[in-house]
Amino acid sequence: MNASTSLRRGLAATILACCAALPAWGQGIEPLLTKKQVFAYPGAYTTTSGTALEQVKVGYETYGTLNASGDNAIFVAHFYSGTSHAAGKYQASDAMPGYWDALIGPGKPIDTNKYFVVSADTLSNINPKDPNVTTTGPSSIDPATGKPYGMRFPVIAMRDSVRVHRALLDALGVKKLRAAVGASGGAIQAMEWAALYPDYVERVVHVIGPGFSIQPWAIGLLEAWVAPIRQDPKWNQGDYYGREEPREGVAQALKLVTLTTRSWGWTDRTFGYKPAAADKPPQAAIDNRFAVEDALTKAGLARAAVTDANNKIYMAKANQLYNVEADVEKMKARILFLPAKSDLVFPPEFSRKAAERYRALGKSAEVFEIDGDGGHLDGLLAAAKAANVIRTFIDQ
Amino acid sequence: MNASTSLRRGLAATILACCAALPAWGQGIEPLLTKKQVFAYPGAYTTTSGTALEQVKVGYETYGTLNASGDNAIFVAHFYSGTSHAAGKYQASDAMPGYWDALIGPGKPIDTNKYFVVSADTLSNINPKDPNVTTTGPSSIDPATGKPYGMRFPVIAMRDSVRVHRALLDALGVKKLRAAVGASGGAIQAMEWAALYPDYVERVVHVIGPGFSIQPWAIGLLEAWVAPIRQDPKWNQGDYYGREEPREGVAQALKLVTLTTRSWGWTDRTFGYKPAAADKPPQAAIDNRFAVEDALTKAGLARAAVTDANNKIYMAKANQLYNVEADVEKMKARILFLPAKSDLVFPPEFSRKAAERYRALGKSAEVFEIDGDGGHLDGLLAAAKAANVIRTFIDQ
Repeated sequence: MNASTSLRRGLAATILACCAALPAWGQGIEPLLTKKQVFAYPGAYTTTSGTALEQVKVGYETYGTLNASGDNAIFVAHFYSGTSHAAGKYQASDAMPGYWDALIGPGKPIDTNKYFVVSADTLSNINPKDPNVTTTGPSSIDPATGKPYGMRFPVIAMRDSVRVHRALLDALGVKKLRAAVGASGGAIQAMEWAALYPDYVERVVHVIGPGFSIQPWAIGLLEAWVAPIRQDPKWNQGDYYGREEPREGVAQALKLVTLTTRSWGWTDRTFGYKPAAADKPPQAAIDNRFAVEDALTKAGLARAAVTDANNKIYMAKANQLYNVEADVEKMKARILFLPAKSDLVFPPEFSRKAAERYRALGKSAEVFEIDGDGGHLDGLLAAAKAANVIRTFIDQ
Repeated sequence: MNASTSLRRGLAATILACCAALPAWGQGIEPLLTKKQVFAYPGAYTTTSGTALEQVKVGYETYGTLNASGDNAIFVAHFYSGTSHAAGKYQASDAMPGYWDALIGPGKPIDTNKYFVVSADTLSNINPKDPNVTTTGPSSIDPATGKPYGMRFPVIAMRDSVRVHRALLDALGVKKLRAAVGASGGAIQAMEWAALYPDYVERVVHVIGPGFSIQPWAIGLLEAWVAPIRQDPKWNQGDYYGREEPREGVAQALKLVTLTTRSWGWTDRTFGYKPAAADKPPQAAIDNRFAVEDALTKAGLARAAVTDANNKIYMAKANQLYNVEADVEKMKARILFLPAKSDLVFPPEFSRKAAERYRALGKSAEVFEIDGDGGHLDGLLAAAKAANVIRTFIDQ
């Protein structure tokens, strides 16, 4: 088996693992067709860190139709390593639809027969080499120099992405958001929407999120998710464009993301206590590996192909900076918290505490725990377990 | 503040965090005095992987006195990054006693007025540069070549350390173990004792352990705990002796060990949502860090000073190979499981399931959960919460 075949198999295993988690009721329904569009921010965008950025662009997709009063829109914010391909297929022959196709579409919990759904790539999206991603980040060309920004790109917060996305919604004619929805890093953005624009956002669906600020342990975890990049000599302080890229560091980083966003049960069911190769038992030689080590390493390498190392570092920082504790009092949106039972990154207690705090201020918060042993990623791959809760929350 | 001062402060913070977790009732009791001794295995030791090793040596400490019938002995096995310095001080002026001094000593739960307590360094102990550690591993001189083994050292399992330690107990005149006790990797060894020598071991105290085999998720975690070493160019496929060592890789690896053996609550209480330096806010520059990132990085670097990179790789493998599922039926020891409530590495459900299985076979198992939000390390630093349970279990 050559390296390329083995990479494809690693990716295939990851995809299969995803498919296995998709709900049976979603089968047989053809996903809607979608296309990627690009939004150019009008003029310069000034970051929360105070730098004016020219030529800011982000990719986006829409599903459904905006009504005349412009108030049936739902914004779906993507997670840390995700993109704006939330639902549908670009072509019927695509192997997989967008990541939340189980939730978004005609007749689905986020019903595109009723609602106009928009999803957009964040600033510094980590996958700029994915042809369906458009983002502005360290890998983008700095108009002032004609070269990639690299580590000269200004610090951005998740709030910066939300501000750019607000300009997109304004351009699309959206007058009000029926809901801001997102998982993990997307849950952070959804909450930022409600904090920034309390009169604009009616509902927040905060899936596998931290609550109103990120926890110090998660700050450490986000650092660990990029440390292998900084450790890779090819990273070269972020100056690798036009040279060999720090792919090994990115792959190691993504491997750790996969491990920590899963948990004990899923890993046991998926890999078991088995060697990677039957003729290479781990007890026989120090380099012989278990199936779980081998599969996570290969999946990391496969995902590294579309990832930019610097963008990933900036995305980690943006998540670390999430803190709307000071904005909670002025927030108005009803919030639905959907933690996942076996989540190691943002365990359910964070959602319960945030909901208690919100209710104590006389505001509306509900919590529904997604059952399962798949870890953090249950919020993406098993969110359909909350289908009825989401539908009711958005419709009412 | 220069690098050296800042390193010491990092270490001091870590030590302070440990002290804070020590129980109030332990204060005021002077720790016993101990000394390190060295055991040389008689003849060649043949590893479970089939290689004959000459000149195998391990360090050990004893506390208390062996009785005439040789049946009042307790073996304390150390954890992954620990050593045989389980209790006492070498000199009254030592800054800190052994790691479990709260549990081991005159009148303490493991009472050295009654019992003869032995602790020994494992094979491939990760701290061979600690002057109080003696171990045989990749960093040891291969008598056949006069050079360190490096990655030519044979694969070892935790079972190999237990076999060497059994020879030590035989040499000391121990006829029977009243208990084999250990936390984490030490809990694994304690269980191996009962699996290998069912008629020799009367009790097992399995603190923050996995049960009867390691879980695939933990296999992935153990790989992640050494991946930064393999990623460091100075590691050089394990051939770095006499050259500059892969200290950065080791430090990154130890940083991840600290993060994942803690949890949300402890990290929040210890570091909070604060910058590492008040004049360098994380939102102002991409390299400005939070306190948690900075402290974990410095603690990793400080601990790296006594760690050997290859030994750490071999220790990870030894833990990955832990599996006594096939031996459970012949085991006879009574087992006390002491999981920690907030443990992310081996959560309490593993202990509960193992205890159920053991009881279903007609054997004796108890479970007591150590309360707290300190993560896996609560099994080391807050084990005194189980003091009465341990005392009763061992005495009865």
